[in-house]
Amino acid sequence: MLKNTFLKVKEKTPLVHCITNYVTVNDCANSLLACGGSPIMADDIGEVEEITSICNSLCINIGTLNERTIRSMLAAGKKANALTHPVVLDPVGAGASSLRTSTTFNLIKQIDFSVIRGNISEIKTVAQGAGTTKGVDADASDAVTGENLEDTIAFAKKLSEKTKSVIAITGAIDIVADSQKAYVISNGNALMSKVSGTGCMLSVIIAAFCGANPTEILDATATAVCFMGLCGELAYDQLIKTGGGTSSYRTTLIDFMSQVTPEILEGGAKIESR
Amino acid sequence: MLKNTFLKVKEKTPLVHCITNYVTVNDCANSLLACGGSPIMADDIGEVEEITSICNSLCINIGTLNERTIRSMLAAGKKANALTHPVVLDPVGAGASSLRTSTTFNLIKQIDFSVIRGNISEIKTVAQGAGTTKGVDADASDAVTGENLEDTIAFAKKLSEKTKSVIAITGAIDIVADSQKAYVISNGNALMSKVSGTGCMLSVIIAAFCGANPTEILDATATAVCFMGLCGELAYDQLIKTGGGTSSYRTTLIDFMSQVTPEILEGGAKIESR
Amino acid sequence: MLKNTFLKVKEKTPLVHCITNYVTVNDCANSLLACGGSPIMADDIGEVEEITSICNSLCINIGTLNERTIRSMLAAGKKANALTHPVVLDPVGAGASSLRTSTTFNLIKQIDFSVIRGNISEIKTVAQGAGTTKGVDADASDAVTGENLEDTIAFAKKLSEKTKSVIAITGAIDIVADSQKAYVISNGNALMSKVSGTGCMLSVIIAAFCGANPTEILDATATAVCFMGLCGELAYDQLIKTGGGTSSYRTTLIDFMSQVTPEILEGGAKIESR
Repeated sequence: MLKNTFLKVKEKTPLVHCITNYVTVNDCANSLLACGGSPIMADDIGEVEEITSICNSLCINIGTLNERTIRSMLAAGKKANALTHPVVLDPVGAGASSLRTSTTFNLIKQIDFSVIRGNISEIKTVAQGAGTTKGVDADASDAVTGENLEDTIAFAKKLSEKTKSVIAITGAIDIVADSQKAYVISNGNALMSKVSGTGCMLSVIIAAFCGANPTEILDATATAVCFMGLCGELAYDQLIKTGGGTSSYRTTLIDFMSQVTPEILEGGAKIESR
Repeated sequence: MLKNTFLKVKEKTPLVHCITNYVTVNDCANSLLACGGSPIMADDIGEVEEITSICNSLCINIGTLNERTIRSMLAAGKKANALTHPVVLDPVGAGASSLRTSTTFNLIKQIDFSVIRGNISEIKTVAQGAGTTKGVDADASDAVTGENLEDTIAFAKKLSEKTKSVIAITGAIDIVADSQKAYVISNGNALMSKVSGTGCMLSVIIAAFCGANPTEILDATATAVCFMGLCGELAYDQLIKTGGGTSSYRTTLIDFMSQVTPEILEGGAKIESR
Repeated sequence: MLKNTFLKVKEKTPLVHCITNYVTVNDCANSLLACGGSPIMADDIGEVEEITSICNSLCINIGTLNERTIRSMLAAGKKANALTHPVVLDPVGAGASSLRTSTTFNLIKQIDFSVIRGNISEIKTVAQGAGTTKGVDADASDAVTGENLEDTIAFAKKLSEKTKSVIAITGAIDIVADSQKAYVISNGNALMSKVSGTGCMLSVIIAAFCGANPTEILDATATAVCFMGLCGELAYDQLIKTGGGTSSYRTTLIDFMSQVTPEILEGGAKIESR
């Protein structure tokens, strides 16, 4: 599954429309190019429908949302829905402010998302309209551990049933689920949380993988999550050898996105289905 | 020509006013510092005229245009014209949406651009009001090749005559032309297309070179294009030795911008005039 | 002092609300993560008060100010004041345009800043309503040198008395002063001025150090300035060994932010009080 799903990305060079935050947007663009996709960022209401029409998928990230871009997110999302393009939501910081929470709810109400990806705090906010989000990072009390894994899988499946979206909860252990099936992925490295935007990068990569595999959203999402995690592992292994801090780690992380092949991914994935 | 033109940049530290997209803006700022210029980004209508007045040149890039910044682009461009400062246009994604295409036309109508730089798809849009732009990257069917080189040179010269701007078409082979003379430049490396923003970086570097050589726009633009391409080549040579992916390549590319001297440029340029 | 002040950052992981420019925002986010803080960027008037309420401190940077974000800066600053959170101002380019200068004055009038950090040109503008700012970099004629050091210290102390803010003037020699006491810091390396955003990064780091040490603003600011300078020195030492240009230097600079410990900082600081 992993190898063929990733091969499709390499073959199709999916063009991904990103309406994303200005903090990590450059890393998102370079991540897309590195993995085999192609980015276009456009957030003006006057062009988002047209831009999304020429793309293979859309990623909406609310990390630095504002009144102007929220309107564009809604317009782009509806257009992508009309065209049956995959649409990914990254509800950055949902729970941290009423604006983020209500915008997340409004987006989910008006747009059919193929995938919703966030940390556990953000996804709990999506589910409950109440979270314990601390800023844009997951609250430690929310962490997915071996002990609450089964509960979290059940939660993700139920949320997927409710939203009709694939749910991707990322953290030390990643869960990717639709209403019937869940993947548990244990690729990744803790240092990824010390680089700004690894979540945002993953969301646009998911959009690329879904754009190249529009009929296999669950598998495409799980493959993207494995890919990102494996790149994080390989980058960590290299950092240990060559030395360096978090900025070198970021560079190496994106380097591996351009170097990991479908075969390497197949060999390195730590994924099981439940 | 190359050596003296670049020396002027080193001597004058031209201050470049950039109204540019938020995707690659940091790389633009660091590219300017690396090559010997100095950046200032300002896009509010309340200050763009004043800011451009203290600068040596202006670069307008429509990569993430919006209603607010389009107004600022027009105001800044007119002011720069009034002051006879060189003005560079990077029509990112012209042809990909009506907003980008009409904004490009409107900018060209209201502002006298010293230089218009884009990939062949974007420049064809500039010329024809109709292109085959796929996203922000050039369409493969548009590529400048050995076979259509003469035609493309003639096209560039004619467009320059029509627009009164130096036309820079960049890709595997670069063409820099005014109505009388064209330079064909074969520096560069294919990997540059896997780094987001190499076009944007080149545009601000052109603005710096023109800002330091305001009476020699054609030569300044050609020199900047050689400079960027040579940095891309040297970065590739180093990447082959040290290993690494596209993010290391980006770092090394900007590194060379700060390390290539006027003498190295003179020695490494692959440029001929037609 | 230095060691304990920095230890507090490591213990508390201060969450810093940044309303900052889109040029260097990614480096600001990664600098905060590297030093032990946590970033959240939010600039919409609909959420800034709520976001700043869950944070430990606020950093306002006017580098790419616009009408919309100026309103958000004022609202966030007042809220942070009401909550007695430390607030840092980085008046980027004050003196370069009337908008920047008047916004700086207006912010200072309406908000009690814990710290104002800028280059000497910007700080002179803060003090005098008239400067000789050239773009966003300090004018050479303004440089703090051994000869005018005593005068500049006296100037900083007086400005601190007037504004009730700790004043941090950074350049080849850094001065951090309140009305009674000044620190003179000679860490740092000239190459830092060839990386875009080192000033912006320092400002958010100051906000993190103040957020973790809210009752020791002068010491927290001086410690942050030492920290940044020391990272710049160590990065330069490494660059000399491994080779590379300004982009590698940027990477290494942020690397050291994640590697310098409170002990290393204590050992490497070049600080004296006056």
